[in-house]
Amino acid sequence: MTRADYPEPVKALVGELKRLPGVGPRSAERIAIWLLQHPKADPLSLATSLQEAKAAILSCPTCGFFATLEHCGICDDPKREQSVLCVVEQATDVLPLERSGAFRGRYHCLGGKLSPLDRVSPEDLRIPSLLKRIDDSEHELEVILALGSDVEGEATSNYLADLLRGRACSITRIAQGLPAGGGLDHADELTLMRALEGRRAF
Amino acid sequence: MTRADYPEPVKALVGELKRLPGVGPRSAERIAIWLLQHPKADPLSLATSLQEAKAAILSCPTCGFFATLEHCGICDDPKREQSVLCVVEQATDVLPLERSGAFRGRYHCLGGKLSPLDRVSPEDLRIPSLLKRIDDSEHELEVILALGSDVEGEATSNYLADLLRGRACSITRIAQGLPAGGGLDHADELTLMRALEGRRAF
Repeated sequence: MTRADYPEPVKALVGELKRLPGVGPRSAERIAIWLLQHPKADPLSLATSLQEAKAAILSCPTCGFFATLEHCGICDDPKREQSVLCVVEQATDVLPLERSGAFRGRYHCLGGKLSPLDRVSPEDLRIPSLLKRIDDSEHELEVILALGSDVEGEATSNYLADLLRGRACSITRIAQGLPAGGGLDHADELTLMRALEGRRAF
Repeated sequence: MTRADYPEPVKALVGELKRLPGVGPRSAERIAIWLLQHPKADPLSLATSLQEAKAAILSCPTCGFFATLEHCGICDDPKREQSVLCVVEQATDVLPLERSGAFRGRYHCLGGKLSPLDRVSPEDLRIPSLLKRIDDSEHELEVILALGSDVEGEATSNYLADLLRGRACSITRIAQGLPAGGGLDHADELTLMRALEGRRAF
């Protein structure tokens, strides 16, 4: 007698699901069984979505955000301010900024941040296209650096600021300080230091 | 200016992923982006696995475990003991028992448990095929009830025991008691009561 196991196609599906971020072996098994057994599950519809998204979605060659073959929702929007360019690390950083409602310009996604440990150097980031956008711009640009406040984000901001100084653009960066809704007792020392350094007239 | 959002194919994919058990809106977005962006991601391979598993896998008409069109790994194994039949709630209960290594017979998956609140009544379970298996058996069967120890599992065990009494089979149930590796201080009163009731000569 051999110990019973799931048939091969189930095991293959579990193997694929296990590779997804945040999905461990147990969840992968639970999801696979649910997909194959639950009356509300529709594995073929998920398969189609995967194939369609994979076929239709690419990086916008201008800004790096998600675009379809025909269209980038941001670069192709004539109502966006042409004089402000917000530099972010990842395409996924765009939507949180959009949801804040505080920005009406365009974006430039670097595709990462400088990180010698992960072997990410300036050549790996979309920096040449950023310089080209600034040089080709018809407007005097404000370039807002909206990178993370971790060590790599800071290093990338500094690197870009050095690179952009002397070009026909002004450079700003987003503020660091106390997060909304947080008391001083929950903030760490570095956050408080930066909140103090960034104080403004009331 | 309209606020930017992911292109439709990405939103459709997020919508499908959000339906999976244990995957919330945030994880669905993270998984979708990972699938479309990460160099190691292979969304088409996941899509193929889904389609292949959906096409190949069905419930074994005899035992209810996962089977392919040609073959049920358990029912078709001639080395399994033909005289013991283990009744479980779900097809997913089979592998934990297999992994325990303590059972060498065959299974019968009911496809659920009696639960008036969820409108699961005896007609919704694979009970007629269980009776037929017992009646058609060439051996005198031992039927092991291996259902959960929650209220619905208990009710289903009692219902089945009533139904099977008088047929040509013996009926047993798996033991309830202290889980392996647990101290008495972590066990609830009901578990301890059942552990005491089920005590055996040392």
